[in-house]
Amino acid sequence: MKFDNPISAANLAAKLGAECIGDGKIQLSGINEIHRVTEGDITFCDNAKYIKPALASNASCVLVNERFEAPKGKILLLLEKPFVAFTELSKETRGSFETTEMVSSTAKIGEGTLIMPGAFVGRNAQIGKNCVIHPNVTIYDGCSLGDNVIVHSGTVIGADAFYFQRKGGYNKLNSCGTVRIENDVEIGANCTIDRGVTSETVIGQGTKIDNLVQIGHDTVIGKNCLFASQVGIAGVVNVEDDVILWGQVGVQKDLTIGKGAVVLGQSGLAKSIKGGITYFGSPVREAREKMKELALIKQLPSIIEQLKK
Amino acid sequence: MKFDNPISAANLAAKLGAECIGDGKIQLSGINEIHRVTEGDITFCDNAKYIKPALASNASCVLVNERFEAPKGKILLLLEKPFVAFTELSKETRGSFETTEMVSSTAKIGEGTLIMPGAFVGRNAQIGKNCVIHPNVTIYDGCSLGDNVIVHSGTVIGADAFYFQRKGGYNKLNSCGTVRIENDVEIGANCTIDRGVTSETVIGQGTKIDNLVQIGHDTVIGKNCLFASQVGIAGVVNVEDDVILWGQVGVQKDLTIGKGAVVLGQSGLAKSIKGGITYFGSPVREAREKMKELALIKQLPSIIEQLKK
Amino acid sequence: MKFDNPISAANLAAKLGAECIGDGKIQLSGINEIHRVTEGDITFCDNAKYIKPALASNASCVLVNERFEAPKGKILLLLEKPFVAFTELSKETRGSFETTEMVSSTAKIGEGTLIMPGAFVGRNAQIGKNCVIHPNVTIYDGCSLGDNVIVHSGTVIGADAFYFQRKGGYNKLNSCGTVRIENDVEIGANCTIDRGVTSETVIGQGTKIDNLVQIGHDTVIGKNCLFASQVGIAGVVNVEDDVILWGQVGVQKDLTIGKGAVVLGQSGLAKSIKGGITYFGSPVREAREKMKELALIKQLPSIIEQLKK
Repeated sequence: MKFDNPISAANLAAKLGAECIGDGKIQLSGINEIHRVTEGDITFCDNAKYIKPALASNASCVLVNERFEAPKGKILLLLEKPFVAFTELSKETRGSFETTEMVSSTAKIGEGTLIMPGAFVGRNAQIGKNCVIHPNVTIYDGCSLGDNVIVHSGTVIGADAFYFQRKGGYNKLNSCGTVRIENDVEIGANCTIDRGVTSETVIGQGTKIDNLVQIGHDTVIGKNCLFASQVGIAGVVNVEDDVILWGQVGVQKDLTIGKGAVVLGQSGLAKSIKGGITYFGSPVREAREKMKELALIKQLPSIIEQLKK
Repeated sequence: MKFDNPISAANLAAKLGAECIGDGKIQLSGINEIHRVTEGDITFCDNAKYIKPALASNASCVLVNERFEAPKGKILLLLEKPFVAFTELSKETRGSFETTEMVSSTAKIGEGTLIMPGAFVGRNAQIGKNCVIHPNVTIYDGCSLGDNVIVHSGTVIGADAFYFQRKGGYNKLNSCGTVRIENDVEIGANCTIDRGVTSETVIGQGTKIDNLVQIGHDTVIGKNCLFASQVGIAGVVNVEDDVILWGQVGVQKDLTIGKGAVVLGQSGLAKSIKGGITYFGSPVREAREKMKELALIKQLPSIIEQLKK
Repeated sequence: MKFDNPISAANLAAKLGAECIGDGKIQLSGINEIHRVTEGDITFCDNAKYIKPALASNASCVLVNERFEAPKGKILLLLEKPFVAFTELSKETRGSFETTEMVSSTAKIGEGTLIMPGAFVGRNAQIGKNCVIHPNVTIYDGCSLGDNVIVHSGTVIGADAFYFQRKGGYNKLNSCGTVRIENDVEIGANCTIDRGVTSETVIGQGTKIDNLVQIGHDTVIGKNCLFASQVGIAGVVNVEDDVILWGQVGVQKDLTIGKGAVVLGQSGLAKSIKGGITYFGSPVREAREKMKELALIKQLPSIIEQLKK
């Protein structure tokens, strides 16, 4: 997420009460998580175990709580609580929510798009042409929808990431990312699509989503996927094109579902799976193997009987 | 779904650019899917494998893309893309959604019924006597509720069927059916009950539904059923009277659950089940058998040990 | 739930057409279920099997349909249908819902709290300081939230308990309890948290709840718990502090989850579990045992092959 105005590393250090390690003249233009940073971005690292990828990333600045050497062209800001400082910065990218309008006057609504009564469209949200936003939908600030998108009632686009750091209780990393929904997507009723923590949650072109489906923060869904009702996908998942997930499938965070994979109802994914194959079970296996296993289990009593003889 | 005005088969053929096979004077009064058609209805068949039931159905007209002989009293319209033509017809039965009213002036609301703030009631919707529609409920155009019905907040009645035809991307068959909820039904919060594609989704008298439950298009639920939270039922399912589904049960499409069946929590149904029996598992089995199987699996290590000796 | 004004047992008996067994001068101040009653409360018992705990409870009055001796300081009211009479009394504690306000003028809203457009806040609801109630949330009458609580869009707090008595069809026990949410709780989008039947549903301080989560009536959640998306918890469950439930976990009614227990995704709990342990499976077992079992099942074909030799 970008700041409204860039800030020099030296000025940021002064603001945060941090020590500069490196060139204080580097201009910093936003914040992002380590997997998404580009030049100008700030990220954080509060555990020496993870310092290598942070220093090797495209981030221009890393908030740290131990002294390291700054790689060329990067700056480190040394302070006591990198996560807390990062959280404070995240708030700067997102103002207060305060508004009394159901459809914000700063939202951009395309030609031919219908916003039904009771729908909320937040500030700086963008909705393309020929969309239908049904009654009582909520689209949070800054989310964007392409053309010909249909969103059924009660669906919530852009609620905060479920992303906390355990420290006695839970500290919240303020979500300052967004949701981007491409053209020709249809989303059923009472779905929830969370915003990225610092980057985007994406629903690819032509994907169709049934009712009561959960899509976690920073998850990227490919084109022409089909998700049946009550599917739940955690955060930071990568779903490639043409994937079909049947009803009540659950997907854990930080994994990839290969192009054209089909997952049968009520299955659970804890690891990445290859494309082009049909899966079943919790934890999931190739459907053919799982079916053989279920058949074997049914025959167990007679098999054991035989063996005992 | 019926048209506002009937149309002769010859006129319809001219409109669709189709060739008439049979008597062009037959009057056509609406569209429906093959399992629901009655006299006067149009249905479609785009795969020769399924032509027999289409011709044997009560439909007066079948849209086809191959030449067949028309049975007596029926007419076939021969054109290139039956599904696309059928979809075009489906749009005619349903106008634009455009409205600015939370409760439509064309909705019929019975005596003693309370519509709470933030609830949306669409055009030509009908709500019986002594109902309570809690805040932020959405009832789409044309849906009907009986007397003494309670609908809790956030529930969405009548969103579109999740029904697409795969052709590279997905083509949507416009949902022009409705939802009919009988007397004395209670529906929890944040449920979703989709409309029929061309026919009705029905919730039978006295049935009680907990929160976050999904009921798919064209599904017919009997009387005095009880569905616990997060149950998901796909489209075109037939649930007979007095069925109990406990929490998170999933039911696939196109099947029947017999009268008085009880399905324990988290079970999954892929096939029809008989009434009067208790079931468990995913895929589901009789609960007693499943419990025996689970007990056997627990003892497997010691059984295998014994056998090895 | 307390009445607006106490009533003497003799007057209540006259009103209900009941026979007094015991001292008619006892003052009765409210109703509650048997596990929650305190002095002055009325409860009911319509099955002689359960009369002992009813008579031993703190209730001052028990509605009964058989003649028993009244313990000292208690009164029994003998009538034909205790449940129906109790239901009638429950209605007295809760007026009509009728209102046209989105935020009731009788609700108490703390300083710094933001109620977004489309959110409904019912009569006598209480919301603490510095809360954010996002658009299209529904908070029913009488529910209370502490300070620094965040509730995301579409969430419904305080819908009726899913609590029916089977008698041919289903009789509803009117929910006259409430929901109490403590400080620093965050609740995701499209969740449902039902009110108590006659007592409170509680979410403890610092607990964080993801989207599409169900919490049943009279369930008490401890402090600093973490529930991932699509978790479903039935009624009258006791979840101790620091419990983590991952996505799509289902929890049956009337059980306890011990402090610090962790339950992996899609697991199902039918019995109480001890704290400090990680669990998996449906029905749930210790995760390590379950993983061993799954590994054994995978090896079954080769084990059986070996044994046959």
